[in-house]
Amino acid sequence: MVRYVGVENMVRLVRTVGVEQWLTGLAAVIEEDFRRWPSFEKTPRVASHSRDGVIELMPTSDGTLYGFKYVNGHPKNTRSGLQTVTAFGVLSDVETGYPVLLSEMTLTTALRTAATSALAARYLARPDSSVMALIGLGSQSEFQALAFRALMGITRLRVFDIDPTATEKFVRNLGAAGFDITVATSTQDAVQGADIITTVTADKQMATILSDNMIGAGVHLNAVGGDCPGKTELQADILRRADVFVELPEQTRIEGEIQQMPADFPVTELWQVITGQVEGRRTAQQITLFDSVGFAIEDFSALRFLYGQLNGTDCYEDIDLLTEPDDPRDLFGLLSPPTPGHSNGQSRGLAT
Amino acid sequence: MVRYVGVENMVRLVRTVGVEQWLTGLAAVIEEDFRRWPSFEKTPRVASHSRDGVIELMPTSDGTLYGFKYVNGHPKNTRSGLQTVTAFGVLSDVETGYPVLLSEMTLTTALRTAATSALAARYLARPDSSVMALIGLGSQSEFQALAFRALMGITRLRVFDIDPTATEKFVRNLGAAGFDITVATSTQDAVQGADIITTVTADKQMATILSDNMIGAGVHLNAVGGDCPGKTELQADILRRADVFVELPEQTRIEGEIQQMPADFPVTELWQVITGQVEGRRTAQQITLFDSVGFAIEDFSALRFLYGQLNGTDCYEDIDLLTEPDDPRDLFGLLSPPTPGHSNGQSRGLAT
Repeated sequence: MVRYVGVENMVRLVRTVGVEQWLTGLAAVIEEDFRRWPSFEKTPRVASHSRDGVIELMPTSDGTLYGFKYVNGHPKNTRSGLQTVTAFGVLSDVETGYPVLLSEMTLTTALRTAATSALAARYLARPDSSVMALIGLGSQSEFQALAFRALMGITRLRVFDIDPTATEKFVRNLGAAGFDITVATSTQDAVQGADIITTVTADKQMATILSDNMIGAGVHLNAVGGDCPGKTELQADILRRADVFVELPEQTRIEGEIQQMPADFPVTELWQVITGQVEGRRTAQQITLFDSVGFAIEDFSALRFLYGQLNGTDCYEDIDLLTEPDDPRDLFGLLSPPTPGHSNGQSRGLAT
Repeated sequence: MVRYVGVENMVRLVRTVGVEQWLTGLAAVIEEDFRRWPSFEKTPRVASHSRDGVIELMPTSDGTLYGFKYVNGHPKNTRSGLQTVTAFGVLSDVETGYPVLLSEMTLTTALRTAATSALAARYLARPDSSVMALIGLGSQSEFQALAFRALMGITRLRVFDIDPTATEKFVRNLGAAGFDITVATSTQDAVQGADIITTVTADKQMATILSDNMIGAGVHLNAVGGDCPGKTELQADILRRADVFVELPEQTRIEGEIQQMPADFPVTELWQVITGQVEGRRTAQQITLFDSVGFAIEDFSALRFLYGQLNGTDCYEDIDLLTEPDDPRDLFGLLSPPTPGHSNGQSRGLAT
């Protein structure tokens, strides 16, 4: 049997554990997996492009577990009340090839993206950071805010979105959650005095959400929204002033902010900072930038963390995704009506 | 909601429709998709190899629907009572990127493999064929027998397996199904007088199940078991005498019987025979060989056929694989307890 975690059970489980506790636990697993980054199989996304979007499969394996995520990206979907991005994923046992977990991954991806952002900031932002500007108050924004509080202790937020209803939604969701929230009048206003600037805007275009003059010394930039070809948020000048940290360089050069830069633009791999092989932030004046696009290993960590959380709960269902004939060579027997003296695992199940 | 067809529902549905009716209907859909072969996206399998096996993702799309199959191959699994191959698949709407169907595909793969074999034989075997030799009586054997009866009218079978318990299982499953079954004493014995020879043996090795001297003029060979690197069933001399038909040449040269042959060994693509662009069998003396390895388009056809069969039945469950927030930007709202005046699609569901 395969454990299935649908949206309802995922919501129940995350609520039971607590969102910030979830983010903290998840970040620890992501950190663990980043520490052993070289031991993972790194396959490029397998993308199927169409007129209105893309469907991707993102597999990886550490030799013991195998995971993949299905994710789509269809910017037009919101016009018809659908989500731009939906996702689900599977975790399997490498030794047998049998799937062990099938899970929704829309919520899970939002959680892992935020956990990865805050984890990166713990290595890259100034340790005395206390104010975060949050630009773009769409579906990822609350998760970012909670992750930065859980992992970095950030409680002061300066938020901005061009759409007032997005701001309203953000304040409705987190207004009573103990943050000190300042609703800014512009991006320029939001970044005033911020130690960390998180950009998570939604429009698919080469945008300039942040221009060079807005970025003071010592700031850490957490650039989340520029995450696919043709979608960026930062003026190129910022990238030249900053030290840029990435997940997988080959992927980020195509999908991240650095798609604006030449192919040999220098970047540092985040996992090397986490293992201590390479320094992260060296001075209080340095501008650091995490050019986040999301990599398969983070989804793997998220599935691995989720799988661990299931034990002792009822937040999953066992589903019959796989045949289980008594005799593996007798697949056909599953289709035969059970007869006396001839039993076959799954067909017994049908008789009950 | 995504329609989920687990093993229990798949068994129920196939039993209701009838296995041979299923195979006939499925073969018609495969034929339809082979006719429009050039309109499909053809992506190589994405394989993750490990010591004991492989896990693969097989995606394809016709621009309207997208499908992929997850399939493993772990020869050692049978030692621990597990299946060598298990599979599941997903069908999605290309316009939105939303999955519409999640299904078991172990049974489905067995059915589509047999349907494809019999479909190929309809174009390649002598129309007066009446006897089939079936070498290898493992999990695929009954499906092959039924597909050849359904599509080619073959009722006389000469069967052989080196393992008597496999033969016993085959006879138990199909002995009362109206076939004229001769249990042969050897492969040599089984192929005597056969118009069609189907090989579906299980051992992963470069085997010589059929040697050149066994193959008379006019025979159609349906070589199913040689389907991955290091696994073949036919002596190379047979390949030189036969006209070889394949699914996707690039894939078959790696996985099929022709892995034994040079890279420029001449083959004909089955879809071109089906569209009439290229002749299949030209003479009654010719030896034809379908070097079957299984391609993503056949799985796509199988999911498409299955999806169509579900309408008006209760052989599926709606599962909550995808989040459905009322406001697509308010993913976080799913995690908030419902409050008066603030509803959110999926969180309502939780309250009931």
